[in-house]
Amino acid sequence: MSYQVFDTSLRDGAQREGISYSVVDKLAIARLLDEFGVGFIEGGWPGAMPKDTEFFRRAKTELDLKHAVLVAFGSTRKAGVDVADDQQVKALLDAETPVVCLVAKSDIRHVERALRTTGDENLAMVRDTVAFLVSHGRRVFVDCEHFFDGYRHDPDYTASVVHAAFAGGAERVVMCDTNGGMLPSQITRAIGELTERLGVPADQLGIHCQNDTSCAVANTVAAVEAGVRHFQCTANGYGERPGNADLFAVVANLQLKLGLPVLPDGCLEKAVRVSHAIAEIANLTPDTHQAYVGAAAFAHKAGLHASAIKVDPLLYNHVDPAVVGNDMRILVTEMAGRASIELKSRELGIELSGHQDALSKVTQQVKDLEAVGWSFEAADASFELLVRDHVPGAAYDRPFELESYRVLVEHRADGTVVSEATVKMRVRGERVITTAEGNGPVNAIDEALRTGLTAHYPELANFELADYKVRILEGSHGTNAVTRVLVETSDKQRDWTTVGVHDNVVEASWHALVDALTYGLAHTTPASAPRSGSWGNSSQ
Amino acid sequence: MSYQVFDTSLRDGAQREGISYSVVDKLAIARLLDEFGVGFIEGGWPGAMPKDTEFFRRAKTELDLKHAVLVAFGSTRKAGVDVADDQQVKALLDAETPVVCLVAKSDIRHVERALRTTGDENLAMVRDTVAFLVSHGRRVFVDCEHFFDGYRHDPDYTASVVHAAFAGGAERVVMCDTNGGMLPSQITRAIGELTERLGVPADQLGIHCQNDTSCAVANTVAAVEAGVRHFQCTANGYGERPGNADLFAVVANLQLKLGLPVLPDGCLEKAVRVSHAIAEIANLTPDTHQAYVGAAAFAHKAGLHASAIKVDPLLYNHVDPAVVGNDMRILVTEMAGRASIELKSRELGIELSGHQDALSKVTQQVKDLEAVGWSFEAADASFELLVRDHVPGAAYDRPFELESYRVLVEHRADGTVVSEATVKMRVRGERVITTAEGNGPVNAIDEALRTGLTAHYPELANFELADYKVRILEGSHGTNAVTRVLVETSDKQRDWTTVGVHDNVVEASWHALVDALTYGLAHTTPASAPRSGSWGNSSQ
Repeated sequence: MSYQVFDTSLRDGAQREGISYSVVDKLAIARLLDEFGVGFIEGGWPGAMPKDTEFFRRAKTELDLKHAVLVAFGSTRKAGVDVADDQQVKALLDAETPVVCLVAKSDIRHVERALRTTGDENLAMVRDTVAFLVSHGRRVFVDCEHFFDGYRHDPDYTASVVHAAFAGGAERVVMCDTNGGMLPSQITRAIGELTERLGVPADQLGIHCQNDTSCAVANTVAAVEAGVRHFQCTANGYGERPGNADLFAVVANLQLKLGLPVLPDGCLEKAVRVSHAIAEIANLTPDTHQAYVGAAAFAHKAGLHASAIKVDPLLYNHVDPAVVGNDMRILVTEMAGRASIELKSRELGIELSGHQDALSKVTQQVKDLEAVGWSFEAADASFELLVRDHVPGAAYDRPFELESYRVLVEHRADGTVVSEATVKMRVRGERVITTAEGNGPVNAIDEALRTGLTAHYPELANFELADYKVRILEGSHGTNAVTRVLVETSDKQRDWTTVGVHDNVVEASWHALVDALTYGLAHTTPASAPRSGSWGNSSQ
Repeated sequence: MSYQVFDTSLRDGAQREGISYSVVDKLAIARLLDEFGVGFIEGGWPGAMPKDTEFFRRAKTELDLKHAVLVAFGSTRKAGVDVADDQQVKALLDAETPVVCLVAKSDIRHVERALRTTGDENLAMVRDTVAFLVSHGRRVFVDCEHFFDGYRHDPDYTASVVHAAFAGGAERVVMCDTNGGMLPSQITRAIGELTERLGVPADQLGIHCQNDTSCAVANTVAAVEAGVRHFQCTANGYGERPGNADLFAVVANLQLKLGLPVLPDGCLEKAVRVSHAIAEIANLTPDTHQAYVGAAAFAHKAGLHASAIKVDPLLYNHVDPAVVGNDMRILVTEMAGRASIELKSRELGIELSGHQDALSKVTQQVKDLEAVGWSFEAADASFELLVRDHVPGAAYDRPFELESYRVLVEHRADGTVVSEATVKMRVRGERVITTAEGNGPVNAIDEALRTGLTAHYPELANFELADYKVRILEGSHGTNAVTRVLVETSDKQRDWTTVGVHDNVVEASWHALVDALTYGLAHTTPASAPRSGSWGNSSQ
């Protein structure tokens, strides 16, 4: 029997503080999840959420899923109402999905205090709604809310809810740790006991864990080890409170550590890309430290390790990063020392072993800059510029010399807000003055720079500012803080990231923008092609 | 026998990408960890890291620890060198800590390939170094690196390392999952088997887990359930790659779920404060979604839950948030609807049940603003202003009326960077024009505002900009993005957070600053004291 990888990023995952998906977002995420090979995509709660009704409507014609089937989520009928008259249940049918997942109360206290009905009526609600949907040709899963808490409080009642669901024709009954309070050993023990009491084998059940004890992934894995084959996750563990079980960690653990073939062949290696793409759509910064897929997941820092890794990468990585689409990175930081800087430079195509003096200077400069807020860990292009400046003959040409710039932001009496920047510089010997407007001060500066440079460097037209991140360091001093800006630039073939640090956000941005143009032009114009070996891909 | 709560935030935790502690930072963190009641604070690697040598030197006179003892970390002597001649070991003694924790190779492959020595010499290195330090009066713990991988590969060799450590006089031998590849069931099984093979009871061993499978907390808990009483964690799980086991989650799980008294009385409830303070020092944004201590850990969003929570909070929280120093929050978002907005307003002191029309308008305005990037989840003061504006008689006075402002940033030909802002406004009927300079455009605007208002509102002098966060939304469009600014203001008695959203970072900041002043003045000047009930504490 195969595994049911059930993703609820679009329903439960959307509950996370800060997430707000448009219908277009949801369709895009559904395609990504399908690429990753999940079996079920819970798309939302039609009827209850207007955007979800719209999602299911458009999905019929706009989604062409290869691996997954769509699931509509909803609840059992209202107490005291005939299931055929329940509008919310009707909306579930209208979504026209092959599968419906119903949430049911399985803790008698919730039945009585939250739903304000009787235990028996709740059982009828479960049985009726399941049977109704099955009679209309739907596969039905039942999410038993507060399952473990309910089972601990009144095992007979919770067992009767499970039986009612199966009696109605449910394909799977899912044990939900809704409050997220379980530990793995408790999950293992509970599943062992209750499968016996219920007379239901573990493979008829599903598991859905929340992360309130920081054990959602571990709890999910424990349930699968106990025989459960249906597990519910969200991409990147997004969800309410501390979130849900992270789809990527669960699947990677099951496949790589326990050898269970939960995804179709070739899917696991898409993990990094799918994880980051979904974060992008969610408008959330990818978690650098996320297991398996984080940018730092296989990044080795300590000087101790860095020297040994040269020896044998597999001695230090618990799995080969490539199997999840990741790679090993050497981080450049003050803790790393010469060995890491030498390794990192080599990674970027600059061989420093014959330039010990340059290596010492680079190491010292990195330490000094980091002491005042600079960080090169995510800005390989800026790091490369720094290193090259110390190696005779390897420095990149500077496309221009700045004389001065000014930026003005005005909120006028009529309420309009305008930004304008003027840059004065020398480009290939010629003095250039340009002025441009923008959406904000940094955009205005960027536009002015480009306006002034494009005549001399037409390839600049292909450079696009792909991402712009601002971080205030020592924020407890409010706006009297050091600002670190990371700029990601793309010319559609490659990405590169640069950094700038200054009290002043405009000056910090200026530095990052100039590095970005310098690096980008050095790697495109024939006249300034890199002199040593192949240049490194510095996309983070 | 009691538990040994061993924190390595200052040594292993400091390996995290982006962390760089000064000596002052380390002393401050050590005091916080001591307040939290940990038993051991691993302060760093003296000799190897100059800052750590300095830390141990200053700790002798500047740290007055009540619960914890300090631990110096280092490694076994070099291969082929007499322990008494090893400078690194000497530095360990010079740190004058009661405890030393030595890292030893326990995987024969690492001994041969990374250390390039023989298995026997490594055993001698372990035994000699432990014995040497014990003879000098130190308590010695031995961290067996790559323990589980090594044990799986060559159990006899790893067992011999453990025996060598105890033979030398080590108090505890710690099993380190250095690559972080273990799952909880594997930890449980391994400890069961190896304690038998070793003839060493579990309570003589320690556990140190890395988070590469996203199971560090679960693995640590599993080890304790298997009888281990010494466990190594870091605050907030900081560490290399996906990090270490989070101290707060481990301790909370052990105390609250398993009833094990691992911390002194009264310490667990300091978790939130200590967690956030350490994040502050580390210059890292606290993880809102962290288990137990995150700002959103007990924050309920779904309209479904919000209405039920009014009924019985403990039905929805896996523990009482107060036991870790946290509290329950109702989040305001478009998913929440009227019920949550009504609850949230009540939390802030505004009763909307008698103002259904206002409630509808507020709900609609929140949805509309959120659709273009606004978020009130972390900005209670801005939310309160919005609500009050809809309730007759409850709106706060606006301290001034803006006519216009302008901000200039100049990078002059001499290289200096200056920022200057001019604000024109009407304050209590009088037209005021002020100009101020600042470190950056937002600071200049803030200074200009205050300069213009302080004559009329002297209490403004107590308001301090405590935190300023910028987030670019839809960053994939580079600087043509919407900027969301969160401003936290403090008057030393309370904090309040406001938000501003706009294409232009200056305008977005302006909005948040104005809200901050409006809210702050409304809560301090007698003439504009809040009209309805007690005002809410909106510190996030």
